[in-house]
Amino acid sequence: MKIAIQGELGSFSHQAALRLGSNARIVPCPRSAEVFDSIKRGTADAAVIPIENSLAGSVAEHFDLLLAHDVFIQREFHLRIVHNLIAGPGVKLKDVRQVLSHPVALEQCRELFRKHPSMQAVPFYDTAGSVKHVIANRRQDAAGIAGRQAATVYRGRILLAGIEDDKQNFTRFFLIRKQRRFLSGANKTSIAFKVKNIAGALFKSLSVFALRDISLSKIESRPVKGRPWEYVFYVDFLRGDDEAARNALRHLGEVAEFVKILGIYPAA
Amino acid sequence: MKIAIQGELGSFSHQAALRLGSNARIVPCPRSAEVFDSIKRGTADAAVIPIENSLAGSVAEHFDLLLAHDVFIQREFHLRIVHNLIAGPGVKLKDVRQVLSHPVALEQCRELFRKHPSMQAVPFYDTAGSVKHVIANRRQDAAGIAGRQAATVYRGRILLAGIEDDKQNFTRFFLIRKQRRFLSGANKTSIAFKVKNIAGALFKSLSVFALRDISLSKIESRPVKGRPWEYVFYVDFLRGDDEAARNALRHLGEVAEFVKILGIYPAA
Repeated sequence: MKIAIQGELGSFSHQAALRLGSNARIVPCPRSAEVFDSIKRGTADAAVIPIENSLAGSVAEHFDLLLAHDVFIQREFHLRIVHNLIAGPGVKLKDVRQVLSHPVALEQCRELFRKHPSMQAVPFYDTAGSVKHVIANRRQDAAGIAGRQAATVYRGRILLAGIEDDKQNFTRFFLIRKQRRFLSGANKTSIAFKVKNIAGALFKSLSVFALRDISLSKIESRPVKGRPWEYVFYVDFLRGDDEAARNALRHLGEVAEFVKILGIYPAA
Repeated sequence: MKIAIQGELGSFSHQAALRLGSNARIVPCPRSAEVFDSIKRGTADAAVIPIENSLAGSVAEHFDLLLAHDVFIQREFHLRIVHNLIAGPGVKLKDVRQVLSHPVALEQCRELFRKHPSMQAVPFYDTAGSVKHVIANRRQDAAGIAGRQAATVYRGRILLAGIEDDKQNFTRFFLIRKQRRFLSGANKTSIAFKVKNIAGALFKSLSVFALRDISLSKIESRPVKGRPWEYVFYVDFLRGDDEAARNALRHLGEVAEFVKILGIYPAA
């Protein structure tokens, strides 16, 4: 199976994709829009995209793309984010003066810099990319912070493993495909909807679930592109394709400007 | 007035802070947590922080910090995000081979790269920082993309102005201070609350507003730190400190685990 991901090989998306099949062929795409295009054109069978991190919040762009494209969420899963200090062959921990990584990763490893005051944090645009960079440039005084897959891909050495300060660091990923298909045990639904611009509109929208004892596990508002400060709501609820859920969605259709089902899948 | 901002001088936060008083003294802080600390310690009188962008979504970290710190939102305002191509003195447009900027800014200026195929987009950790970098390193073949304040601060030249693809690009900023004070005309309230873990809890929480005909202008869920997949809700509603709002908040206190008022301020 060919699985598209956004970003460099060795990223957390790469790790997540391998969890779905250790012999998946990974198709790296520079931009998220290209990930979605590759499914549409059939150059990839599926894609694995991060949707929210338990510390950093939602990946807003991916919500927008799920709404705009004709794709379907077939699975969700949670990846524990483990950061590692990774350098090129022969580089020793005591040689490391500069530590490159994405600002979010640097921020999540503050204890490392407290313990090693001689190390300077250098913001870089990508985690796996920072490892690729220090190894490609044969940096003897630098290391990157990334997941362990980056060490495998770029033949780096893990100098320190598990350096993230907060171990409760998870990213939720979606497996998306072109086919609108439910896996067995699908008991969770993700939808997007836009409320009409009237008083109590969101309350009425949520009543369709509350009146049927359907629990929401997430709600998020996102501005509508080109219409600043108008919002689309993204909701996850804990039901699959059953009668109550179908009734709730039909009812939501009466009170919302539009409703789109993004996927029905087994809860992780 | 000393106003703390996160990031480099010349950033959009810097531009936003100057809108509040052209003779404000700007205190740049490398990290957002330090912005909040500077208000607490009194080394700054106020801070200006971006809270959401109409294209890129919310700045999740700032919601977390507003909840954790004893500060109060006193104003909101919207800044139009205008991107410019900025280079050092003497550098001409036809010399520019590399264009550095934050990945979000590069993504928002795709038309530039279509029109100028000889320019290569190079991700950098910061917009204003990219201008600082190309000028400090006397790069003759490179430019940065940033707001016009970066050109002023680093004495760069604007080669092209207004290069963002989508003109509907706004960032909403908060002015925060230590004092819990309402400006005259304060007609909008921002709160954070956590619902009890029971069915229909969010619906009950929103009913306190709907029952009193109070309109919400935004709702957002954020994971609770250290308790993955539990959520705090951030809500803006269109009322100041009046009787209906006070009743709604008292009612919300009955159905929520906690409620915090983040600020009451005039709607932009």
